[in-house]
Amino acid sequence: VGEVEPTAGAAKAVEARVVASEEKETGRVEAFSDGVFAIAMTLLVIDLLPLSTIGGDVAIELSNSWPTFFAFISAFFTILVIWMNHHSLFKMIRKVDSRFLFLNGLLLLGTTFIPFPTALVAQHMLDSGGTVAALVYGATGLALAGAFNGVWRYAAKNRRLLGSHVTQKDIDRVNQGYWVGPVGYGTATALAFVSPIACVGLVTALAIFYALFA
Amino acid sequence: VGEVEPTAGAAKAVEARVVASEEKETGRVEAFSDGVFAIAMTLLVIDLLPLSTIGGDVAIELSNSWPTFFAFISAFFTILVIWMNHHSLFKMIRKVDSRFLFLNGLLLLGTTFIPFPTALVAQHMLDSGGTVAALVYGATGLALAGAFNGVWRYAAKNRRLLGSHVTQKDIDRVNQGYWVGPVGYGTATALAFVSPIACVGLVTALAIFYALFA
Amino acid sequence: VGEVEPTAGAAKAVEARVVASEEKETGRVEAFSDGVFAIAMTLLVIDLLPLSTIGGDVAIELSNSWPTFFAFISAFFTILVIWMNHHSLFKMIRKVDSRFLFLNGLLLLGTTFIPFPTALVAQHMLDSGGTVAALVYGATGLALAGAFNGVWRYAAKNRRLLGSHVTQKDIDRVNQGYWVGPVGYGTATALAFVSPIACVGLVTALAIFYALFA
Amino acid sequence: VGEVEPTAGAAKAVEARVVASEEKETGRVEAFSDGVFAIAMTLLVIDLLPLSTIGGDVAIELSNSWPTFFAFISAFFTILVIWMNHHSLFKMIRKVDSRFLFLNGLLLLGTTFIPFPTALVAQHMLDSGGTVAALVYGATGLALAGAFNGVWRYAAKNRRLLGSHVTQKDIDRVNQGYWVGPVGYGTATALAFVSPIACVGLVTALAIFYALFA
Repeated sequence: VGEVEPTAGAAKAVEARVVASEEKETGRVEAFSDGVFAIAMTLLVIDLLPLSTIGGDVAIELSNSWPTFFAFISAFFTILVIWMNHHSLFKMIRKVDSRFLFLNGLLLLGTTFIPFPTALVAQHMLDSGGTVAALVYGATGLALAGAFNGVWRYAAKNRRLLGSHVTQKDIDRVNQGYWVGPVGYGTATALAFVSPIACVGLVTALAIFYALFA
Repeated sequence: VGEVEPTAGAAKAVEARVVASEEKETGRVEAFSDGVFAIAMTLLVIDLLPLSTIGGDVAIELSNSWPTFFAFISAFFTILVIWMNHHSLFKMIRKVDSRFLFLNGLLLLGTTFIPFPTALVAQHMLDSGGTVAALVYGATGLALAGAFNGVWRYAAKNRRLLGSHVTQKDIDRVNQGYWVGPVGYGTATALAFVSPIACVGLVTALAIFYALFA
Repeated sequence: VGEVEPTAGAAKAVEARVVASEEKETGRVEAFSDGVFAIAMTLLVIDLLPLSTIGGDVAIELSNSWPTFFAFISAFFTILVIWMNHHSLFKMIRKVDSRFLFLNGLLLLGTTFIPFPTALVAQHMLDSGGTVAALVYGATGLALAGAFNGVWRYAAKNRRLLGSHVTQKDIDRVNQGYWVGPVGYGTATALAFVSPIACVGLVTALAIFYALFA
Repeated sequence: VGEVEPTAGAAKAVEARVVASEEKETGRVEAFSDGVFAIAMTLLVIDLLPLSTIGGDVAIELSNSWPTFFAFISAFFTILVIWMNHHSLFKMIRKVDSRFLFLNGLLLLGTTFIPFPTALVAQHMLDSGGTVAALVYGATGLALAGAFNGVWRYAAKNRRLLGSHVTQKDIDRVNQGYWVGPVGYGTATALAFVSPIACVGLVTALAIFYALFA
């Protein structure tokens, strides 16, 4: 016992240190990203605040402002799904490097930008600027799907940043699932030329569908 | 010892991994939700900022703006209680699944929305839009009470997501307590037709009462 | 060994669970409060944004807006010190109850309010509304000092929520130090009648002094 | 075994307590700072929101507003790099004291300020206020580089707050790297006199270069 214990103790201590440092490494990126997602999601309400000072018949004015509420809900579920997706991704990732942090940074850039196309599409959904506004809205989603692909493919290349608990089957499954985003948001962006409302509707449907069944 | 120790060691390691993964699973949802609650609560002050540029006699103008401060305090305690309630709920929950994350997402949607009905009721409490504004304010509280019930009942059904430390008595007690929210906010919403001030007052009283005695 | 180990193991497990639950209990309150402090601090910049759209000579216009920058820095250090103070306080606290959460909630209410008196004092420091604005600014600081006293005295009464590592000497030292806040902010509030600038200056000096030497 | 185990257990327990308290000490500062970085980064979008209400041809109006998007991206990467840099720094720091918290507070002050010079430079990049706006923008970056140097040099002096895992070689490498910030931002600030666009461009290039290769 006297001989075996110290070795086992040392091995345990080293392992504990490795596990702890691994967790810490992704822990701060996850917490930071979650902070950005939570804030971007909560800031969306700023787009609604000007509606609070409307005069006239409040019920009628609020009803006429349905595009603003529609865009708010669409953007909310989009960010909720970004968070859920990020959550799933980081269950597989155990290490980070600065290139990975940069790619994750592009994902955050797209997310912090979301309240702007949301406000744009809320303002112009029913006027002549609707197509351009919906294009910007759809393209933001498309860029985010691209950023997610970049983050994942960089991490998964030769299992660069993955944990040892991730199987090849897990990797294949994610690779397949990651085509849905670009195709879905690409279609939504193209729909902007047909109807701004259909574009925002498809983005919303995609997000709610993903949140419920992914 | 040589034979027993490794087995015990392995069992401990597995248990530690289970406990750790369980904590991580709810940990990120709790941290994310807390982030949304903290931001929604702190953003309420944006509704007050336009008052800072008022001209004339500052003391008189601020006094006349009491509905804005009243709505600010009402919404603050409402979000504080949402946080406390969420805190209590997650003491019993040890696992999450995507349906649960969606229901929790509806809770967050309602919370991020709060600064809007707050601004609306602050603006219209004393004018002809008061009833509609108070209806929206009360209905937001009612929807949040509904979302809390959804989150809890989904988690508790057949003890689906509960930890093994939760007793049937705990579950029964929560089931009973969760009728208070819908009844209280339902009454507040109905009060909007009588008096917008009474509606906001009841929401505030409910929140402070819950915060002090729950 | 066979008899001793399991007992020791059980004792360790129980202790670990106690320690873990204690940490978790205050952990979520601390994290939530820190979130509110960080957001309130970062939102202060919203008071500066209208200055970005000024026309004319930008250098002269910015110089003329010095009260806005002065109030921004004053409020920033005030919130920084609230955070540091809260940090110190929670090193001694190991348990929470709902009354304590309510008192901590009053502290958060005061903190989320800060951007409003900051904007008010920035706007009116040099006009006839300066006294009222500075009174509101000083009184907010005084209320926060009161809330800190409430939180501390509730937790320390009969060592209700303190950890066993806290000595009577620690308690006495905090009791003494907690007179500084009410006296300092009380003086600052009274100074509002003499000079709004002096009031804001004293609040700022108190915060920087505390941050450097406490 | 009976004699050795308790001693080893006690030693382990003490070590665990030391490690845990060390982690906790920097943990809360890191989490708080990360919160400020995440919020400042996400608030930048507020500078874009007024563009959503523009009339006329939306595509042309958005194109004409390119300085606003340019400043948004520049500030985003600046804050991303502040976060990454802070992250690297805290890998070496294991203790905090109140002087260190104050210096870190100056870093946070500069960071919360960033949305203002960003809005200023977005508004005035192409008009006669461009030089002053770019000066404020560059000087903010320079002040932040100074604050980073202050934080690091205070922590590293006689290894005051460093962990025992940090080698002299690590310290020397950081000392060298920390000249890049003041020189780079000093050059950017000087460029404001030549061209506001060049100033913002250099700040952006520095941030992206650091994010990719540091």
